[in-house]
Amino acid sequence: MRIAVLGVGLIGGSIGLAAKRRLGAEVAGYDPQPANLERALEVGALDRAAESLADAVADAEVIFCAAPVTALPALVADAIEASGEGVVVTDVGSTKRALLEAVEGLDGEERFIGGHPLAGAETAGVEGSREDLFDGARWYLTPSPRSEGVLFERLRRLIADFGARPQAVEASVHDRDMATVSHLPHVLANALVAVAAGSLGDDSDRRAEVGRSFRDAVRVAGANPGIWADIYGTNADAVAEEIDATVERLQEAAALIRGRDVDELARWQASIGEQRRRLLADHTGTGELTELLVVVENRPGTIAEIALSLGQAGVNIADMSLFPAADRRTGAVSLWIDGEDAAARAAELVAELGHQVTTVPASES
Amino acid sequence: MRIAVLGVGLIGGSIGLAAKRRLGAEVAGYDPQPANLERALEVGALDRAAESLADAVADAEVIFCAAPVTALPALVADAIEASGEGVVVTDVGSTKRALLEAVEGLDGEERFIGGHPLAGAETAGVEGSREDLFDGARWYLTPSPRSEGVLFERLRRLIADFGARPQAVEASVHDRDMATVSHLPHVLANALVAVAAGSLGDDSDRRAEVGRSFRDAVRVAGANPGIWADIYGTNADAVAEEIDATVERLQEAAALIRGRDVDELARWQASIGEQRRRLLADHTGTGELTELLVVVENRPGTIAEIALSLGQAGVNIADMSLFPAADRRTGAVSLWIDGEDAAARAAELVAELGHQVTTVPASES
Repeated sequence: MRIAVLGVGLIGGSIGLAAKRRLGAEVAGYDPQPANLERALEVGALDRAAESLADAVADAEVIFCAAPVTALPALVADAIEASGEGVVVTDVGSTKRALLEAVEGLDGEERFIGGHPLAGAETAGVEGSREDLFDGARWYLTPSPRSEGVLFERLRRLIADFGARPQAVEASVHDRDMATVSHLPHVLANALVAVAAGSLGDDSDRRAEVGRSFRDAVRVAGANPGIWADIYGTNADAVAEEIDATVERLQEAAALIRGRDVDELARWQASIGEQRRRLLADHTGTGELTELLVVVENRPGTIAEIALSLGQAGVNIADMSLFPAADRRTGAVSLWIDGEDAAARAAELVAELGHQVTTVPASES
Repeated sequence: MRIAVLGVGLIGGSIGLAAKRRLGAEVAGYDPQPANLERALEVGALDRAAESLADAVADAEVIFCAAPVTALPALVADAIEASGEGVVVTDVGSTKRALLEAVEGLDGEERFIGGHPLAGAETAGVEGSREDLFDGARWYLTPSPRSEGVLFERLRRLIADFGARPQAVEASVHDRDMATVSHLPHVLANALVAVAAGSLGDDSDRRAEVGRSFRDAVRVAGANPGIWADIYGTNADAVAEEIDATVERLQEAAALIRGRDVDELARWQASIGEQRRRLLADHTGTGELTELLVVVENRPGTIAEIALSLGQAGVNIADMSLFPAADRRTGAVSLWIDGEDAAARAAELVAELGHQVTTVPASES
């Protein structure tokens, strides 16, 4: 396997290390800053420091674009243009919809599949690269309806081999969910800091002791301005909508608190506690895999459609194999699903998409 | 030293353990639930389980009221009534102004000094009691202008001997600060859970992965409904005002984000980061103590006034001793202040209050 990494910071470097050490892949890297490339070679993340983007992707099978979010549209377009048929181009940016729109209509767009590993967002620099950075981490993939199934499957497997847990999701759904679970908490932390700075005063005189709840609540406030300005800017609508929803909830809370009805306040608090438990409940699978054999027409988008349908239903695809038929017009996909209930759900969903699906008995799989 | 603990949960039990083991004090306890008293005896937090409040406080010199916030006004009133001259009554509630107002005008109110240790708020039960629960913890004391100085000093020293860091603060300032650094973060966590539950849906189907920023942000959401309903209810105005301020900040943030100006977003993020650093900066002292000798008129409120003035200026009183003069109309107070700059500031503040103050040379102190 030959891999190109364009942009060798923490994520790019860790991709290089994981690819080299765990898969024995050959990794070429390019970065506009030569110092980054030198350090990447030093930490062993690359086999070869390329002199240009074209040089890096020359014989790559998979190209990872690991640049800041606002630099990705141009970088991904260049990577697609510089590479040929059968080469999958992906990225690791924190927002996906704006990038997908930028790629739409490009010659070769069917070879692009957006990606977003939930790992290492807060640190910087290739020096921090680790082979195990992605171990157990969710890695979202956002194929479009035009993405090539065989490329999706290759990328999905590669990411699973890095140690991550790939999941397909639509780009717009990804961005909405991230607005809720990641971008909004950052904005709330910022607002809390601004309020506290106003209430407690800027001077170091009277200083209220801040406890763990405050420290936890502001841990991410003001984090990495470059990265977060890009994230807010490229996911502005979704983030602003979540802020609006929060404002409504806070206004309700203020009214409730001003009412001073201790019983009602206790009911509110208890109901939030219950919602919190549900949100944080562990939905990981049982570890027992069920194989589904799906017969598909070999048309563009089929594999992405199946992966998206299962991903968005919360069904975890533990493994996947494609078997194109000799006529190239049909093929079979094996899906290994984690958990019996999830497998039954997956079979339903795949059938709903119009495919013939068989659950392979455990003894045969 | 004889101590009474009224209400033996985690805090009351830990006070008992610290008093017995660190000071060799004799500790009597009372709790309306006999099972709590039994467990408190089992964990060694009490020498004696009293049969009534009156029995517990019979020969106590210091009485700790460690009941839920809404039960405190009646409990503190009973404790004051059941005890005599020279006995200090305190509490450990999370809000202070409502309690102070309830005590105001009672016969013996000069013997009450509110307290609030920042420790162990989230767990419950005397089983979790620990001798070292208060080690290094801030313990706010909220004397009123009518509090007796000699009782304040006794309580302050006792709390320092528990291992805590006592600091005097006005009850209303305490409640405003707590609204900012503790109660508001809890409300924000609640709002985030409500928004996320709405956006992600209640079913376990499609489930966005939540990362550390989300888990941190909702850690305290819906915590202990009984305790938190009391806190919100007894500090309603201050908490609601902080919520209003947060709503304004969030509306500004939403407008900024909708503007999509990445440079402006980066400046905002950087400025919040700077404010966060200032808020969390460590203002602990140097460990070198300077002694100030203050000559005071022996009138009610003088000691509380000095302690409040220094506490609100962020000056840490590491130790304090009272020396009443023979005529009982004047006296001297020694204050040991942590750090030279802080000592100079303290001398200024004490002089501003109209007292004669001398900095004792290090060789003599």
